[in-house]
Amino acid sequence: MPQYRAPVDDTLFLLSDVLGFHARANLTGFADATPDVVEAVLREGGKLADEVLAPLNQVGDQEGCTRQTDGRVTTPTGFKAAYEAFAGGGWMGLSVPEEFGGQGLPSTLNTAIQDFASGANLALSMYPGLTQGAVAALLVHGSQEQKERYLPKMVEGAWTGTMNLTEPHCGTDLGLLRTKAVPNPDGSYAISGTKIFISAGEHDLAENIVHLVLARIEGAPAGTKGISLFLVPKFLLGEGGSLGARNGVSCGSIEHKMGIHGNATCVMNYDGATGWLVGEANRGLNAMFVMMNEARLAVGVQGLGQSEAAYQNAVAYAKDRLQGRALTGAKAPDKAADPIIVHPDIRRTLMQIRAFNEAARALVLWTALQGDILHRSEDAKERQTADDLMGLMTPVVKGVLTDRGFANAVEAQQVFGGHGYVEEWGMSQFVRDARIAMIYEGANGIQAMDLIGRKLPKDGGRAMMAFLGEVQTLLKDHGEDAAMKPFVAPLGAAVNDLQQATMWLMQNAMGKPDHAGAGATDYMHLLGLVALGVMWLRIAKASLARRAEGGDTARWDDKLVTGRFFMERMLPETGLRLARIKAGAETTMALRVEAF
Amino acid sequence: MPQYRAPVDDTLFLLSDVLGFHARANLTGFADATPDVVEAVLREGGKLADEVLAPLNQVGDQEGCTRQTDGRVTTPTGFKAAYEAFAGGGWMGLSVPEEFGGQGLPSTLNTAIQDFASGANLALSMYPGLTQGAVAALLVHGSQEQKERYLPKMVEGAWTGTMNLTEPHCGTDLGLLRTKAVPNPDGSYAISGTKIFISAGEHDLAENIVHLVLARIEGAPAGTKGISLFLVPKFLLGEGGSLGARNGVSCGSIEHKMGIHGNATCVMNYDGATGWLVGEANRGLNAMFVMMNEARLAVGVQGLGQSEAAYQNAVAYAKDRLQGRALTGAKAPDKAADPIIVHPDIRRTLMQIRAFNEAARALVLWTALQGDILHRSEDAKERQTADDLMGLMTPVVKGVLTDRGFANAVEAQQVFGGHGYVEEWGMSQFVRDARIAMIYEGANGIQAMDLIGRKLPKDGGRAMMAFLGEVQTLLKDHGEDAAMKPFVAPLGAAVNDLQQATMWLMQNAMGKPDHAGAGATDYMHLLGLVALGVMWLRIAKASLARRAEGGDTARWDDKLVTGRFFMERMLPETGLRLARIKAGAETTMALRVEAF
Repeated sequence: MPQYRAPVDDTLFLLSDVLGFHARANLTGFADATPDVVEAVLREGGKLADEVLAPLNQVGDQEGCTRQTDGRVTTPTGFKAAYEAFAGGGWMGLSVPEEFGGQGLPSTLNTAIQDFASGANLALSMYPGLTQGAVAALLVHGSQEQKERYLPKMVEGAWTGTMNLTEPHCGTDLGLLRTKAVPNPDGSYAISGTKIFISAGEHDLAENIVHLVLARIEGAPAGTKGISLFLVPKFLLGEGGSLGARNGVSCGSIEHKMGIHGNATCVMNYDGATGWLVGEANRGLNAMFVMMNEARLAVGVQGLGQSEAAYQNAVAYAKDRLQGRALTGAKAPDKAADPIIVHPDIRRTLMQIRAFNEAARALVLWTALQGDILHRSEDAKERQTADDLMGLMTPVVKGVLTDRGFANAVEAQQVFGGHGYVEEWGMSQFVRDARIAMIYEGANGIQAMDLIGRKLPKDGGRAMMAFLGEVQTLLKDHGEDAAMKPFVAPLGAAVNDLQQATMWLMQNAMGKPDHAGAGATDYMHLLGLVALGVMWLRIAKASLARRAEGGDTARWDDKLVTGRFFMERMLPETGLRLARIKAGAETTMALRVEAF
Repeated sequence: MPQYRAPVDDTLFLLSDVLGFHARANLTGFADATPDVVEAVLREGGKLADEVLAPLNQVGDQEGCTRQTDGRVTTPTGFKAAYEAFAGGGWMGLSVPEEFGGQGLPSTLNTAIQDFASGANLALSMYPGLTQGAVAALLVHGSQEQKERYLPKMVEGAWTGTMNLTEPHCGTDLGLLRTKAVPNPDGSYAISGTKIFISAGEHDLAENIVHLVLARIEGAPAGTKGISLFLVPKFLLGEGGSLGARNGVSCGSIEHKMGIHGNATCVMNYDGATGWLVGEANRGLNAMFVMMNEARLAVGVQGLGQSEAAYQNAVAYAKDRLQGRALTGAKAPDKAADPIIVHPDIRRTLMQIRAFNEAARALVLWTALQGDILHRSEDAKERQTADDLMGLMTPVVKGVLTDRGFANAVEAQQVFGGHGYVEEWGMSQFVRDARIAMIYEGANGIQAMDLIGRKLPKDGGRAMMAFLGEVQTLLKDHGEDAAMKPFVAPLGAAVNDLQQATMWLMQNAMGKPDHAGAGATDYMHLLGLVALGVMWLRIAKASLARRAEGGDTARWDDKLVTGRFFMERMLPETGLRLARIKAGAETTMALRVEAF
């Protein structure tokens, strides 16, 4: 059975040594997050992931969810108990304000726990994950009454949440949506329509489900400007918040999916269901985007989680499987053959995944920290920069970490040879599960367009200038340090590629937007490579500092080698991305449609 | 339901205009393959793929194969009738000598039919595919008696064939194999052992199954030099070749796999089964390699086939799905939204797959043609060059076409957004099915090692010199042609990268073989990119010639644009591959094993 061990030590190192987490005591909630508290939280969360969530990962894949004839949905064996352990441990509200039953700790810690939980069991982690997204939306846009009625139950995990956006004819282009809301005399609305691909839409883990639903109020404008957000509970609330009548919303069917079988992806039928407006009428897309940003960061984390889980299993197999001899002579002469980890091509595979994982983990924590600064700092300038950087990096984290996370799961599967193709070994599941992260919460092509079409030009390119400014400062600060040279020089070249690409787009894509569209995915990956490179620079610096302290220096040498591997073998991809961007849109767009 | 249409017209163009197939009348069997015959064969084969094999692709995935309690294996609904249509049409023996019931036509045509059949239904195509491999091995290594007894039945499809190499503890490293062969007094052997991952190992499509099995004769040397090849029929043959007693070989179980569910991947138990030596004792690996080369080319073709099928469905969806508006203004103003094929990122995806498919098809046909020259020419020098080129390109075709074919299936799936993740749409199946091709017949890392460790240095690098010589001649011949400039210049740069990489390896990997191992996969892809670039150069030349003739010039303009897309956006990857190779093995190999 596949194994998983949450990367607790690495996360602690990243927070304390690389990201300066503990220097942020000025942010609300950070003063409580002392090194001891952080370590206790992460160790406990890691234990939950390792011992409760991970052992159910394969069970969930094999059993899947079942819709009973009466419309109830049952989840795989053990999911309910594991969900209750998660909720009972207070994990749902880790970073939710205490007034709604949460612990008020930094969101960055919640992101670390998401990393562990999704690596251990992606399908199971989605139930609380979607609830946390719904909680985030209600915290910002819900009325005081809505918050008081719904949030405490959601934070304690008694109720879960969902997001209902997609319809059969519209996903990316929500302006086309048709679900309608008709005002009732009491101020509520009657919601009717069909939503598809609703993760955790129906299940047996919690006693109520709070659906957040996009719909169009009768008579509202067409397009995206006529969309409102509604709260539609599965069970209406009676007196004092007790569960009342069943609402007119039900699961019509469960999709047969490639992966994440343990999560019920539902077609949800709204048949005059009673819902309440969340936030302003016709501003539903804005309200939903609060959830989307949170969700996109979490999905990027899922890409990393699957990459980490797949890596750990590939390492275990590579150390165990005996096949062939090292090119440099037998390494295990007492055995019939050497373990395959001696082979350079296997090493290359493992190093490639490892070098990504460690930097990607730094990047998601860094991005989450920007979120904490944005929401918890009292310094307006600091908040603005954090907002800019988080906005810029969210599509990169979502798009690049899920593209690479999936590719890494495939690479890790390859280490197993034929056994990787057999379901029992669990590697196929990592690949199949990781695949969804490239698609949901905005397919990665949409992330690329969000980056290049919105985030990059916004406020005259202020976010990118802030990012490049930070990078240039880093490069300058370490430019004279001989030990940092293997990091500074390649990153300098990569940043140069990024600047050239940005310049080319400024000069060419204004008049011809197809140039931006044709280069969007490459630009997203180019920025992602640079961002990962920056993380390696920071990790290298911190590792050198720790090594200078003595003690277990081997751990820091390993970090430095892994970082150099990234710099030598992975970062040079920026040149290819730049070449593609500069090729422009001509050949991409030239073919007649009928010729395809 | 997913659709498939065999690329018959493109194949005809490649054979006649690009590869000079009809100028090869000197080769045995080619004189019969007149343009009319070739067209009739390919149109008929395409029809079989489109109308008989493709409609069963999804059925096969959903139903899979079932092992009954008595050990019989049943295949999915319709598979038997489709298999009989394939066999009855004479396709099994298309390029088998007429004396054994075949048609003696060029193998190149058989490769074209494999492309169609595997694109239409990979799992189903594997039953005849493995039979053709077994036929090839018996043709070369079987005794006259073995050929007469087994080949006609296999060629008519009444019996199928398998290859039995892998055991639980050994796949790549066959030197470890334990299946044993004990001589019987009558000259036969009693074979005992367990083989795993045996495709088409047991099924209900044919009345007998001829297993080719690697085993060690009692007392034979350890390692690869003690392995012999045996023929073990499921039913022993009685008088006059009639079916006699059931042999001691049976299917113990069927693997639960990620894909190719329609093909029964069996654990085969040999329990004193009667077998006959094929070829010389202890030379079984050599005999098996005849099948392996044939099989590796065929597996590369499978990568292409899945890429083509996925592409066709992504195109259909991209023309049909309405979502958003073109960046340059509405293209379908009468509709609620534009078809997503207007979006540059969708175009980029489709062009990337298309530009690969067309060149990859040329490359597999070119490689198959080298095989025909090798086996059918009377000119020894021509045979040697063909042998060199085919040996050099077989691992590239296998490794690169399956890596890219899988990646393309993933990209095509992405075009469908969430629908791509739902099994009903069929895109998940293309991804899951394509995945196996990167693994079986030697995992792609093994292909890379075969290329860099065996094929490249063999005979003082004669094969690579022959390849580079051909390319230089092509570049020189077209260097003055202005219309060819967009092809000649980028290919020249890519060839330069290849030469630099080759030189670097010659200078650095002799003393340190880890440098070769660490760069092997990148080198394989680098050579693959150049080979595909060469194919585009040839296709461009032929397209320009056809366009000059007038008529449907749009078709040739489409070819030229697609080729330029490849040159601008895909071929520059050679630079990245070179940079990785030149990085050497240091950081790849430096980490302590216990640090992973």
